Amino acid sequence: MTDLLELTAELVDVPSVSFEEAAIVSLLEDRLRAVPWLTVDRVGDNLVARTTHGRPQRLILAGHTDTVPPNGNERARIDGDTLWGVGSADMKGGIAVLLDLASTVSEPAVDVTYVLYAREEVAAVHSGLGELAAARPDLLAGDAAILGEPTSGDVEAGCQGTMRIEVSLAGARAHTARPWMGRNAVHRLGRLLAVVEAFDERRPVLDGCEYREALQAVAVDGGVAGNVVPDRATVTLNHRFAPDRSADEAIAHVREVASMADDVDVLDVAPGAPPALDHPLLAALARGREVRAKLGWTDVARMHEHGVPACNFGPGDPTIAHTRDEHVTRADIEAVHVALHDLLTGRNP
Amino acid sequence: MTDLLELTAELVDVPSVSFEEAAIVSLLEDRLRAVPWLTVDRVGDNLVARTTHGRPQRLILAGHTDTVPPNGNERARIDGDTLWGVGSADMKGGIAVLLDLASTVSEPAVDVTYVLYAREEVAAVHSGLGELAAARPDLLAGDAAILGEPTSGDVEAGCQGTMRIEVSLAGARAHTARPWMGRNAVHRLGRLLAVVEAFDERRPVLDGCEYREALQAVAVDGGVAGNVVPDRATVTLNHRFAPDRSADEAIAHVREVASMADDVDVLDVAPGAPPALDHPLLAALARGREVRAKLGWTDVARMHEHGVPACNFGPGDPTIAHTRDEHVTRADIEAVHVALHDLLTGRNP
Repeated sequence: MTDLLELTAELVDVPSVSFEEAAIVSLLEDRLRAVPWLTVDRVGDNLVARTTHGRPQRLILAGHTDTVPPNGNERARIDGDTLWGVGSADMKGGIAVLLDLASTVSEPAVDVTYVLYAREEVAAVHSGLGELAAARPDLLAGDAAILGEPTSGDVEAGCQGTMRIEVSLAGARAHTARPWMGRNAVHRLGRLLAVVEAFDERRPVLDGCEYREALQAVAVDGGVAGNVVPDRATVTLNHRFAPDRSADEAIAHVREVASMADDVDVLDVAPGAPPALDHPLLAALARGREVRAKLGWTDVARMHEHGVPACNFGPGDPTIAHTRDEHVTRADIEAVHVALHDLLTGRNP
Repeated sequence: MTDLLELTAELVDVPSVSFEEAAIVSLLEDRLRAVPWLTVDRVGDNLVARTTHGRPQRLILAGHTDTVPPNGNERARIDGDTLWGVGSADMKGGIAVLLDLASTVSEPAVDVTYVLYAREEVAAVHSGLGELAAARPDLLAGDAAILGEPTSGDVEAGCQGTMRIEVSLAGARAHTARPWMGRNAVHRLGRLLAVVEAFDERRPVLDGCEYREALQAVAVDGGVAGNVVPDRATVTLNHRFAPDRSADEAIAHVREVASMADDVDVLDVAPGAPPALDHPLLAALARGREVRAKLGWTDVARMHEHGVPACNFGPGDPTIAHTRDEHVTRADIEAVHVALHDLLTGRNP
């Protein structure tokens, strides 16, 4: 049997920060094309490998190949049964499981579409899954989908929406020796940041799952010269909103929070998806497992938009994704492998 | 008689943002070298033109040729007796006065050193006057000095010190869908900016002149990625401090104000200068004129450091320097010209 922790480490050691996935995609493509029961298509830096047994149902297993920029953790490091490194949890452990299932399950009970796509960790407009949906929607046809995002082996239902908003504050320049003659836009920014920090988060419960909204400043910029009271400052906000709100409703809410700003520009927005655990394949996966709301945005939303019910299920602790301490355990990867193997082969409880 | 407003407009129309003074210096050099009673030296982009009549006293008249970056006001525009444009007040009106005096006062009552220097509007370390002091200190010898910085034709005594400080705040990265797992450095920056905005300014009175301190954020920077709680943010502060405080005392004060910061780095510091109106030449200038504290840093401080008592006296409103609305009037330029002409020819009251 494949050592899935070693396979994950091998994938971590191929750098694949968003937009730089070509090397890891070529590695995965070579392995998938060697599997006799799969039909493989490559669209840009996205791979789709399908069984075509003519089964009555088709399940999509999907995951992204990119990572956020490393944070002193670019190399895989295994200590006992734990693997550290950027992308180990989000989501090269999941990719390792998908690669192994694709290579070993020759006669699944349902047809399977394995989707490995690029550019998930950046603005939604760049998504490889979006590129696939536009160029080859036929490759994404299916009855249900499971996204291998890190969930610690639990089922995370639906997902929250996300948007980035650039908020600008104006001022009036003056010499810094006489600042009372001007209006400091960076000082105004401080007041706006206080409002953002005091954001009163909603926690709606849908189908028993509690979502939890968030508003975070993710970038600031401002200044003119070292002796000039600055007349402009900008802050980029990231807002996460529960799936009971549409994108438009969420935008209106942020505009209200940032009402002291001179300009509010929505850079990108991706709505969320409600829980979809009433589908038989997803219900079978959820049975006997812990189920909770997915707080991060995932391509479950894109699947929902295309009419495919989906959930998140993968190895790795989502709370340490994107941190220096990102890691994944052998037990987590193997448990997800067993669960998906059982689902594909019809051995579910 | 020279039309000094036209001459100032001509100088405004030669762009001379700091570090790009070569063209205006060449123009000034050509005119000064044509004056038979002057000895002219050029050191880099700095010009020194001297009379050498062997008078018992030598007065330095000095001004900088650079401007801050334009703000939609790069071209000179004359409307009636007012000239608009970047540098019109700070300080091409003063340069026009110096150029005309140098070209017309052939037999002054005191020897005169005209100093036209580069790079005053940037960090003190780049100062052309500093370059001159290091390369040719003999050219800056004198009994007293008048800096032609804009003072609306009043006498501005001494000057406040200035420093730039980079303040850094740390945090802990996390996924923005779970911000409570990290610590947002940009949100901490907001709290620091509130402290800066609430800065309790000192207003000490020295020799009857009231100084007024200031602390301003002049630049901010921070952020990692659109979906990451940022773990770093920086703000650059500009602190103006009265001449009753040394640079070390002022630095200690800012460190105390920014005590919540993780790192405080002094980028540059230039101490101020106390009033020096007891010198006979400066006292003669001040007689019958309004006298007040100079709030901005000027090279009066550098002159003070070299043992030359100095004050600020020039055309143009200092409160509109560095703004879009910068302008200077014919009356202001001509009044300063008359005052300095009287001082040079010994016709003072």
